[in-house]
Amino acid sequence: MKVVITGGTGMLGRRLALRILAKPELFGPDGRPAAVDKLVLFDAFDPVEPPPDDPRVEVVTGDICDPATVDALIDGATASVFHFAAVVSGGAEADFDLGYAVNLDGGRNVLEASRHTGRCPKIVFTSSLAVYGGERSVDDSTALTPQTSYGTQKAIGELLVNDYTRKGFVDGRTLRLPTIVVRPGKPNAAASGFASSIIREPLQGDTVGNPVTPETRMLILSPPRAVQAFIDIHNADGAALGPNRAVMMNGLSPTIAEMLDALRAIGGDAVADRVRVAPDALVQSIVDAWAWFADGERARALGMEPDASVSEIIENFIAGELGGKFAG
Amino acid sequence: MKVVITGGTGMLGRRLALRILAKPELFGPDGRPAAVDKLVLFDAFDPVEPPPDDPRVEVVTGDICDPATVDALIDGATASVFHFAAVVSGGAEADFDLGYAVNLDGGRNVLEASRHTGRCPKIVFTSSLAVYGGERSVDDSTALTPQTSYGTQKAIGELLVNDYTRKGFVDGRTLRLPTIVVRPGKPNAAASGFASSIIREPLQGDTVGNPVTPETRMLILSPPRAVQAFIDIHNADGAALGPNRAVMMNGLSPTIAEMLDALRAIGGDAVADRVRVAPDALVQSIVDAWAWFADGERARALGMEPDASVSEIIENFIAGELGGKFAG
Repeated sequence: MKVVITGGTGMLGRRLALRILAKPELFGPDGRPAAVDKLVLFDAFDPVEPPPDDPRVEVVTGDICDPATVDALIDGATASVFHFAAVVSGGAEADFDLGYAVNLDGGRNVLEASRHTGRCPKIVFTSSLAVYGGERSVDDSTALTPQTSYGTQKAIGELLVNDYTRKGFVDGRTLRLPTIVVRPGKPNAAASGFASSIIREPLQGDTVGNPVTPETRMLILSPPRAVQAFIDIHNADGAALGPNRAVMMNGLSPTIAEMLDALRAIGGDAVADRVRVAPDALVQSIVDAWAWFADGERARALGMEPDASVSEIIENFIAGELGGKFAG
Repeated sequence: MKVVITGGTGMLGRRLALRILAKPELFGPDGRPAAVDKLVLFDAFDPVEPPPDDPRVEVVTGDICDPATVDALIDGATASVFHFAAVVSGGAEADFDLGYAVNLDGGRNVLEASRHTGRCPKIVFTSSLAVYGGERSVDDSTALTPQTSYGTQKAIGELLVNDYTRKGFVDGRTLRLPTIVVRPGKPNAAASGFASSIIREPLQGDTVGNPVTPETRMLILSPPRAVQAFIDIHNADGAALGPNRAVMMNGLSPTIAEMLDALRAIGGDAVADRVRVAPDALVQSIVDAWAWFADGERARALGMEPDASVSEIIENFIAGELGGKFAG
C-alpha cells in the first residue's frame, strides 16, 4: 500500500518512515499488516538528515498550503497519511499568519485531498498537549482551552479530523503528543525545545541555557515511544475510538531538576555542569500553560506505553542517536 | 459609535438592531453606554422583514466568504461587531462545503477584517449548544465534542475568537445559544426549527408535523431573552471573562410534551390538535446529540437570565409577534 508522511523528512517523520520500511506493521484496509510498496515523504524543506535509502521511498518537496500540491500528493492510491507538517509552537506564536496558513489551512488541505480520493484513507493527525491550557493534569475528556496559537490550531485540527471522519470522508485519528525528549539534531523554534537541548547539548560537549525554573515539570515522551504510538493509533479499531478520534498519549512528568539529576547520574558533573541558568520569561509563560500530568485512559487501553524513566530516555538517546558515546 | 451586525436582517440580527436603535445601551470603548450613530446590517440576502426605518441604519448585501467585502464592511470606524451570519445546522449538514465556507471561513474573514482595523474592536460571536455532543447536561467547562458540521464550525469559531483576543487583535466574546423558541417567520433549515414550528404554526391556524418523541427535551431561549443576552455579553468586562471568552447561556429544558401542554393550555385544543406526529429519524438523531440541561455559572454571574416558563415564552410570542391574536 501507499503511505504518505507530511513533514516526512523531519525528526519524527523520518524515524516513523524507517520503522515502516523495516517491517510490515501498518494495517491495510483489510485490518491486517500490509506491505508498504510506496512511501512518500513530503516536506517544505530539503532533508537535513538523509532520507531512508530504499527504492520504495519518494521524497517530495512542496508547500502544504497549496491545495493543488496536496491533491497531487494524496492521490487515489493512498491508503494512509501521517500528517506531521507544522509550524512549531514558538514559530506559530512569532508569525501568526504563517502558523494559521500551515497548521490550519495546511491541515484542511490534507483532509480535503483525502476526501477527494473517495476512498476514505486513514489520516493520523499529530496534535499536542498544547491544546490544553491552564490545567495541571489532563485526560482524554479535559476541555481544550489552548493558550497559544499553535495549541488553537491543533485543537481546530482535532475538530476537523472528527468531523471529516464522521462524514465518512476520512478514517481519522489524532495523537496528542507530550513534549518529545530527547529530540536529536539542532534546536528548533518550539517553545519546548529547551527540554531536549538541556540534555542533548551537554552530552555533545556544548553548554546550554535552561530557560525555566527547576520546579517546572514537563510531560515528556521519547521519539521511539512516539513512533510506536503512531503505529498503534494507526492500527487501532476506528469504531472503538468512537466519534472523538483524539487520544492523549501519556508520558513521564519529571521536574527540570529531576531531568538534570538523571543527566548528572549518567553523564557525570562535567556534562551536567554545562547547563547554565538562563531564565526566559516568554518560554516560561508558554510552558507554564501546559499540563504537567496526563492520565490518558484511552492510550492505556490501546496499549500505548510511555517511557519507564528519564534515565531510560537519556540512555536510549545516547545509544540510538550518539552512537553510544558522549562527551564526558 | 459604528456597529456592524452580520446576518443583520435575519431574525436575531434585526431584533438586536431594533433594540440598539431604541436606546444607548451598548458600552463604547470607554466602558459607558454610547450613542450608536451608524448601524450597518450586513446580510447575504435581501431582507425578508423590513429593516428598521432609521437614518442611522445602512443595509449592505454581500458575501461573507469574500475577504475584501468583509474588510470594506468592518472598517477603522467600527467599534463593535455582532457576528450572526451563518449557515444553520441542517444546511451545514446538507452542504458540507457551504457550511465550512460561511461558518468557518466567513468567521475568519470577520476576525481578520477586525484585526486589520488595528483598533481591537469588540466582536460578539454567536455559538450554539451544538458545540457539545453526547452530554445530557453541560456547563461552561464541558469539553466541546460536536457531532455535526455546524457544531464543529461553531467550536472552531470559539477557539479563533479566544486566540484573536489573546493576541490583542479583537476584544472577542462568544455567546453559546440554546435553541431559539419561538422563532417568528418561516421555517428555516435548522434541525432545531421544528421546536418553533410546533408552536408558531398552530397558533396561526396551520397544521405542523412534530418530528421527535414527546420525551425529547429541548434547551430553549426566547428571542427577547437572546437579544438581552447579546447586549449583556457585549457589555461584560472582558478581563473578568478571562482567556476563554465563551459563555454558555442558560435556558429552559421542557420536554416536547410539556411544550405542547403549555400550547394547549394557552391556545386550547383546536390549536394544540394542529400538531401531528411525524417522526423524522434524521432530525431526531441530530437533536438527540444536543444537551438537555445547561448549568452556566458564568451567564448567571453576568446576570443573564433565561425565560421564566414555557407559558411566558408562548404568551410573549403571541403579544410580540402575532399582535396579541392567534387562530383559536
